Amino acid sequence: MSQRSCLSVILAAGEGTRMKSAMPKVLHAIAGLPMVAHVVKAAEAAGATGVALVIGHGAEEMRKAAQKFVPEAQTFVQEKRLGTAHAVLAAREAISKGYDDILVMFGDTPLIDAGALAAARQKLAGGAAVAVIGFRPPNPTGYGRLIEKAGHLIAIREEKDCSEEEKKIGFCNAGMMAVAGKHALRLLDKVGNKNAKGEFYLTDIVEIAGAEGLDVVATEAGFESALGINNRAELAEAEAIWQARRRREAMLAGVTLIAPETVYFSHDTEIGADTIVEPNVWFGPGVKIASGTKIHAFSHIEGATIASNCDVGPFARLRPGADLKPKAKVGNFCEVKQATIEEGAKVNHLTYIGDARVGAGANIGAGTITCNYDGFSKFFTDIGEGAFVGSNSSLVAPVAIGKGGYIASGSVITESVPDDALAFGRARQKTIPGKGKELRERFASAAAARKKAAAE
Amino acid sequence: MSQRSCLSVILAAGEGTRMKSAMPKVLHAIAGLPMVAHVVKAAEAAGATGVALVIGHGAEEMRKAAQKFVPEAQTFVQEKRLGTAHAVLAAREAISKGYDDILVMFGDTPLIDAGALAAARQKLAGGAAVAVIGFRPPNPTGYGRLIEKAGHLIAIREEKDCSEEEKKIGFCNAGMMAVAGKHALRLLDKVGNKNAKGEFYLTDIVEIAGAEGLDVVATEAGFESALGINNRAELAEAEAIWQARRRREAMLAGVTLIAPETVYFSHDTEIGADTIVEPNVWFGPGVKIASGTKIHAFSHIEGATIASNCDVGPFARLRPGADLKPKAKVGNFCEVKQATIEEGAKVNHLTYIGDARVGAGANIGAGTITCNYDGFSKFFTDIGEGAFVGSNSSLVAPVAIGKGGYIASGSVITESVPDDALAFGRARQKTIPGKGKELRERFASAAAARKKAAAE
Amino acid sequence: MSQRSCLSVILAAGEGTRMKSAMPKVLHAIAGLPMVAHVVKAAEAAGATGVALVIGHGAEEMRKAAQKFVPEAQTFVQEKRLGTAHAVLAAREAISKGYDDILVMFGDTPLIDAGALAAARQKLAGGAAVAVIGFRPPNPTGYGRLIEKAGHLIAIREEKDCSEEEKKIGFCNAGMMAVAGKHALRLLDKVGNKNAKGEFYLTDIVEIAGAEGLDVVATEAGFESALGINNRAELAEAEAIWQARRRREAMLAGVTLIAPETVYFSHDTEIGADTIVEPNVWFGPGVKIASGTKIHAFSHIEGATIASNCDVGPFARLRPGADLKPKAKVGNFCEVKQATIEEGAKVNHLTYIGDARVGAGANIGAGTITCNYDGFSKFFTDIGEGAFVGSNSSLVAPVAIGKGGYIASGSVITESVPDDALAFGRARQKTIPGKGKELRERFASAAAARKKAAAE
Repeated sequence: MSQRSCLSVILAAGEGTRMKSAMPKVLHAIAGLPMVAHVVKAAEAAGATGVALVIGHGAEEMRKAAQKFVPEAQTFVQEKRLGTAHAVLAAREAISKGYDDILVMFGDTPLIDAGALAAARQKLAGGAAVAVIGFRPPNPTGYGRLIEKAGHLIAIREEKDCSEEEKKIGFCNAGMMAVAGKHALRLLDKVGNKNAKGEFYLTDIVEIAGAEGLDVVATEAGFESALGINNRAELAEAEAIWQARRRREAMLAGVTLIAPETVYFSHDTEIGADTIVEPNVWFGPGVKIASGTKIHAFSHIEGATIASNCDVGPFARLRPGADLKPKAKVGNFCEVKQATIEEGAKVNHLTYIGDARVGAGANIGAGTITCNYDGFSKFFTDIGEGAFVGSNSSLVAPVAIGKGGYIASGSVITESVPDDALAFGRARQKTIPGKGKELRERFASAAAARKKAAAE
Repeated sequence: MSQRSCLSVILAAGEGTRMKSAMPKVLHAIAGLPMVAHVVKAAEAAGATGVALVIGHGAEEMRKAAQKFVPEAQTFVQEKRLGTAHAVLAAREAISKGYDDILVMFGDTPLIDAGALAAARQKLAGGAAVAVIGFRPPNPTGYGRLIEKAGHLIAIREEKDCSEEEKKIGFCNAGMMAVAGKHALRLLDKVGNKNAKGEFYLTDIVEIAGAEGLDVVATEAGFESALGINNRAELAEAEAIWQARRRREAMLAGVTLIAPETVYFSHDTEIGADTIVEPNVWFGPGVKIASGTKIHAFSHIEGATIASNCDVGPFARLRPGADLKPKAKVGNFCEVKQATIEEGAKVNHLTYIGDARVGAGANIGAGTITCNYDGFSKFFTDIGEGAFVGSNSSLVAPVAIGKGGYIASGSVITESVPDDALAFGRARQKTIPGKGKELRERFASAAAARKKAAAE
Repeated sequence: MSQRSCLSVILAAGEGTRMKSAMPKVLHAIAGLPMVAHVVKAAEAAGATGVALVIGHGAEEMRKAAQKFVPEAQTFVQEKRLGTAHAVLAAREAISKGYDDILVMFGDTPLIDAGALAAARQKLAGGAAVAVIGFRPPNPTGYGRLIEKAGHLIAIREEKDCSEEEKKIGFCNAGMMAVAGKHALRLLDKVGNKNAKGEFYLTDIVEIAGAEGLDVVATEAGFESALGINNRAELAEAEAIWQARRRREAMLAGVTLIAPETVYFSHDTEIGADTIVEPNVWFGPGVKIASGTKIHAFSHIEGATIASNCDVGPFARLRPGADLKPKAKVGNFCEVKQATIEEGAKVNHLTYIGDARVGAGANIGAGTITCNYDGFSKFFTDIGEGAFVGSNSSLVAPVAIGKGGYIASGSVITESVPDDALAFGRARQKTIPGKGKELRERFASAAAARKKAAAE
């Protein structure tokens, strides 16, 4: 099919009032990516070489989002909402550029798969003028039926217009279609609006093309491919289907998910074989994990790169820019952001490492904080190979700990420490015999007095 | 129906041995609220103006719980367990007060919905003397069947007494019924105990009323409404049904739940539109969330008020009295208790804020602790607008940081700090060249010696 | 059956390429225990007195794992993979030792239950020579059918060899069988390899024994019992079934699991009645919990012993050696490792307790760290009964805090503190009026300058 050019026209002008959202419907995300971007990706996987996005509601926000997620798309505004054929024609300029195939798609069917689109394009390659994508829902009630005769699609009939016989047809209109580029504008322009709502319906081109003697056919897509999202419950269903697919794919590729139903992937998560993921792990966008790593329960990971044989969590938070080299370890209640943890280094307990490098084999004690922020700027902390940072230390950036440097527990380190040096910054302990008891008695009687006063 | 008074008699005397619990069965909770309180709420939503709770097993604990959760209920003790009619008559005093309608309900059917109760009351308003609530279980085996004739309910037949024809009836007794107040005591007093177990069965009043020529009817409730809880597996099923309903309701109202099956609501959770909730969030009682807020994964929230456009978690713990103003941010491994986080203030990492106020726009560094407890009393920490608290600081309450105050990292602050002042309380760093290496060698050889000694 | 000796021969030589793993298939775990160890446990529960493990792929790793998880098993290496009968004969030495019953099992069917095995052995006790375990899969396509005649099993027929009539049989071969010890070697040695693949099939002994006039029968196991694991998706399914069974068992025994589907047990978890487990809790191996304890959401517990009426989590991490005595409390973002928390002691916030004892009733302030590691060895911290450790303190082990000792917030404690003494180790606060504002302005202009420089 690669020899045929293809434009995907994606209708995304709907308001989506049932989402009850200030944000346009198609920008709501599945696996961290706006629905409409999933649709664009499917079109491109099916060979689309151009993308025309028809927007309307929230046009400004839509344009910005398109810029960010699908910069290759050209946007067209449908000023008035006069039906699907009218919406497609908002992209007239793009359609008229001579593409072989025009794929008409919807921005709110995020699970459409490339295979179904490619099958429709294949029909065009074989000479059809229009190939409508159909599906077989468990219960067809309410859907338009695809009326076929001798291998040709002769009409798309709304349920209310169906005969009793036609109502028994289980093959329904999924909305999407492929139209031969050379016929597309002519057919679309022939669509009229003499109907109850006064709208221009895309589905009319089936009969128009048939009347011209052109070949019109239907192809079948899986049920999920056609799932349209109208409210947030449906959004969650689509997310669940997407996640189930992705989890299965990961498991079959050699990733152990002990409880797959509790692991959430992002659209772009990469994860290597023999990685073990305990229950309850969340992957945000931008995560790459090599093989043989263990991700313990309750880990929240985004924008992080994790090399082989690392050990992460439980209760680890890896934020964008976290870069774990082989055999690095980030343990419980630790946050790592914009920092490299070199080979075999350990950040195990209650620690914040931000804007830093932790050298190979270094050991960071519990409760260590890199103080990277002065309220205005962020500063860098460099911890050398094999350094030992005692527990509860504060490393006030910019600061460097040399190779093999040793920081005593509870220190505040404000000046760089040379290789192999010891540094400490803590007060000497004083112990006052009996004073603990005295304080306890004083505090207890004060508490009693306060309580008494409050009661009066 | 508002013109008719109504008493709900709730039978809650059962021991519930299959719960294997020291706590009375009906006090086990669904969505953080005891089952029996769910039942009371449903009765009240159906217009009950009085509530009589018939208790028996664990009477003392039941009375305390009733006091706490349903203070409007009057409790009656059923001393001996002689059947359901006998149980209802334990509330004779309340029943005899002249209510128009008497609703007889069970404390262990927490999913009963008000609509089913109102439908039964409607029948009384239309002239019926008794309206029994029935349901259609997927498999009726074991349930008492509702025997109807010409629109009247003529008997409730135990399965063992059913003819083959009657066993085919799918309409079963849910246990609950509405009885006209003017007939209730008379009918109940006519119930005898000449049966195998020697018990007084409430179901007998159907035939008794029929024999008096009164109108007896059945109404139908959904299957879940009649779900009785007998063990903790059934308790978990009811919880799951409750949660599924509540999640769907939230999504349709404009809340994004990325993985609804992992978000747990409490009976009283309030949550606004365009709030996004990542997977794995737990809401305990008393949570109110305005719109546009993001709750990240692994957050545990109870008794907290969260304004619009806040950012919470991941790994945030908000405890009772946490009050987040618009655009406040509480991040990972942070606990907030009895404290106000003013507009735009940030508490982002590894921090404990208890009994405190964090002023608008203030920035609290990682690892900050408000030391609010002396072992006997709790003290307040006040942090001014725009203050900057450096990482790993300890604020020993009672203490106040003025507006724009600046606390150096790693400080212990015991005295209040004026507006715009700098405060620090930390030792000066000392660095000893070569000493790190020396220590490392000493520790390594000591470890080796210990290992050798242990092996000998 | 106890009078009959029994050898379980477990075939575990398969490569399991579809697992896509460097680890042998049968070592992949269900509930924290390798599949093959589940199989051994089932055999032993059915009375097996000897275990022969036939290994091949990854023999060295298998031997080590067997040593660790099933030390009672004798291992035999199948050098070449020439079919199931050939695999069983790899254990010829063990089989020839005169056991009454030989159970042939597979290392990759981890859900096999002892009842099904015992039923097959019962048939041998009744005189049968071979008892094949069958099951009824929802869809039998692809399975070998059990061909019975007059109560005898006359053949196991591969689907491709079945007549149309035989294909309708729903009773299929689960692979496992019990063979009378006195016949086992003779029957196995008669198995030939004149077939397409040139392999020795164990299933052939059904017809061989029949031809000898011996009694061969089939017994039926539940579907799940026969579930063979070939890839990680199937591994996850088996884990899910195992977990669902275990959760139900716990609930019926009086444990409240608010959301059972989010609680993960290990193969050896012990948990007492009236324990309440909030959603999202992970139990690793070696956990024992007494009754009346509450485990809050997001807790990760392994190798820990928890007494009655404790309070754990949310966000608690209990690691091996954590030993909580009655009414102990370990709260959010706390890690406890190899440490005893005595009765009523509280470790509530952001704390690391490792290699330590916290005395009865002691209160450990937020952010406390036991500094137990010098980079080479671990040292002990002993905190006395009723001691109070102020927030953000560092206790540098080895160190002891006496009974009733009082540690001021933010202290670094390096020397032991006597009973009832006060200790502090922190710098005195200094406050510089106006200096906060000055710093803020300096930092702001530096940030602006950097930004400008970066832009140029």
